[in-house]
Amino acid sequence: MSSEVRFCTACGHAVEKRVPAGDHLPRHVCPACGHVQYFNPRIITGVIPLWQERILLCRRAIQPRLGFWTFPAGFLELHETASAGAAREAREEAAIEVTDLQLNSVITVPHVSQIYMIHYGQMRSAEHRPTAESSETHLVDEAKIPWDEIAFPTIFSGLKRFLADRAAGQFSVHSLDLHWPTKKSG
Amino acid sequence: MSSEVRFCTACGHAVEKRVPAGDHLPRHVCPACGHVQYFNPRIITGVIPLWQERILLCRRAIQPRLGFWTFPAGFLELHETASAGAAREAREEAAIEVTDLQLNSVITVPHVSQIYMIHYGQMRSAEHRPTAESSETHLVDEAKIPWDEIAFPTIFSGLKRFLADRAAGQFSVHSLDLHWPTKKSG
Repeated sequence: MSSEVRFCTACGHAVEKRVPAGDHLPRHVCPACGHVQYFNPRIITGVIPLWQERILLCRRAIQPRLGFWTFPAGFLELHETASAGAAREAREEAAIEVTDLQLNSVITVPHVSQIYMIHYGQMRSAEHRPTAESSETHLVDEAKIPWDEIAFPTIFSGLKRFLADRAAGQFSVHSLDLHWPTKKSG
Repeated sequence: MSSEVRFCTACGHAVEKRVPAGDHLPRHVCPACGHVQYFNPRIITGVIPLWQERILLCRRAIQPRLGFWTFPAGFLELHETASAGAAREAREEAAIEVTDLQLNSVITVPHVSQIYMIHYGQMRSAEHRPTAESSETHLVDEAKIPWDEIAFPTIFSGLKRFLADRAAGQFSVHSLDLHWPTKKSG
């Protein structure tokens, strides 16, 4: 992301990379107007949609990891709560409405500067369909989850945590760090 | 933040605000090179530092809310885990080392597009001191917390959740949304 930063967003002058006074890391600083452009990790919010005992999975129709399976998840937008963002992703990726979203996992992925906030929630109906982002959508039993074709390690870990909580009959919020690249990240 | 975006970071041309093809929100798009600049919520990571039963608080030496009290917290940096970022903030704001950080609260604040990740952790020693960011640092008993002079509603809520868990003798991760502005945000 930051490799593309060559010009100041405020005045259009070429920027320099240096440590501003009182700071501790190099930033993109404009020598003309003094504007400092910061870059920070981004939040990916997602939801494991449930219909009775089954879980809704989507086959990705877009890169990266096209053709692999995921539950709905994507970048949190400005002025959006994490749960509202996850519900929006469910609409965009599988044309479903999900309610009663509960946070289940917070997964930090420093390698790619991302933090996943993974919820679970109830589908309003059993209906779902492919979208521009998903070539297929399926309600699957736990025993039928395609573990070898899950899109990202975060999705894999989020599903595992949820299933472990459900099996134990007790849900809590789990916090973990995932260090990519791993074998699962392809 | 995004109000300052008038020029393309990739080529320096003036940008337009419009919805890119396949997207659902207006973005800063460059008509010259096609670069799209995204802005997303930012993560503030913090830690409630503990020495025996006492809590370390810092009086802010910087804006916003200069002169009000907080525990160490600040923006998560690229390629940093939430707990590592919180430990860094403790060093920067109070010159302390904190270990065994545990996530306790995840607070979404959509009004300012921020998500707080609040941990608690153990100080390696009882030593601490003012810094460029803190005009005073104090180890305080729970009964002496200056609730009317806490810097932000998120800091207030994070402290309350931690103290409730500690009183109950059982810690978990709490997820909540805070909608600013409130009376506390003054």
